[in-house]
Amino acid sequence: APRREVLFFPSPVTCTAALLGEPGPAPCLCPLPHGDSPLARLLRRLLSARRSLELCLFAFSSPQLGRAVQLLHRRGVRLPVLADCSPHFAGIQVRHDQESGYMHHKFAIVDKKMLITGSLNWTTQAIQNNRENVLIVEDAEYVEPFLAEFERIWEEYNPA
Amino acid sequence: APRREVLFFPSPVTCTAALLGEPGPAPCLCPLPHGDSPLARLLRRLLSARRSLELCLFAFSSPQLGRAVQLLHRRGVRLPVLADCSPHFAGIQVRHDQESGYMHHKFAIVDKKMLITGSLNWTTQAIQNNRENVLIVEDAEYVEPFLAEFERIWEEYNPA
Ligand SMILES: [Zn+2]
Ligand SMILES: [Zn+2]
Repeated sequence: APRREVLFFPSPVTCTAALLGEPGPAPCLCPLPHGDSPLARLLRRLLSARRSLELCLFAFSSPQLGRAVQLLHRRGVRLPVLADCSPHFAGIQVRHDQESGYMHHKFAIVDKKMLITGSLNWTTQAIQNNRENVLIVEDAEYVEPFLAEFERIWEEYNPA
Repeated sequence: APRREVLFFPSPVTCTAALLGEPGPAPCLCPLPHGDSPLARLLRRLLSARRSLELCLFAFSSPQLGRAVQLLHRRGVRLPVLADCSPHFAGIQVRHDQESGYMHHKFAIVDKKMLITGSLNWTTQAIQNNRENVLIVEDAEYVEPFLAEFERIWEEYNPA
């Protein structure tokens, strides 16, 4: 059956070091809670990517989500990124908006079969303070139009 | 089968007078195109409400969407509105944010069985200029958590 899940934010601040494969003692000794959280669930879905992760994001500045992207890149996952505003990641191609309107999407597609989309911009402010939603979707009726939208924008933002 | 549909914006500007039941000649003689558009489809989904329309919106200033809400109110549809920023509608109760973070959702629930959610703020800027997405969803796995989130925020923003 297709996975159908909703995450609501704000997320409590929890330790994500183990999820992100960061070196250190196990179990972690930091003072943060080490349980589940909406952010931890979002990270786990993203980190499940084995082949590709399309990212199409209005704003991308969360350090944890950035570390997840870098970890996936090191694992060899193909990572095309469309973002109006994002950090630089060594070795990852980021294409930017060249239009008048905003590229206001906030979605990711894992292995071309799981769509992650909602109201959440990938910023610490949004994750920790705002009321936000994220849907995890595997139904092809949603995944395929979003893949096509990604390809359209990717071509349109081709700097060549 | 549950309806599963995705709308992408920006939307071309089309005439919505007939959809919104505005008086005038039929067919309409205005210079705008009178065909389909993402905005027209969104309006049609909202205007299908017969009993209730929950609205949970970060920003709500689109005149056409405002007229749809007023039309539904005149038809007797129950219309609780949560919005950080919205116009005043005679006879419609709007509850506002009293928190530090943003209430950044952008969703509507038609007759407690159809969820309409995505990246789109209900503003003319977003509708006409931005790249945005809206999902139309009838699967209970999504509709029910959003209804519960609405009820949580509605109670939390109770001014009494
Ligand atoms: Zn820790
Ligand atoms: Zn017209």
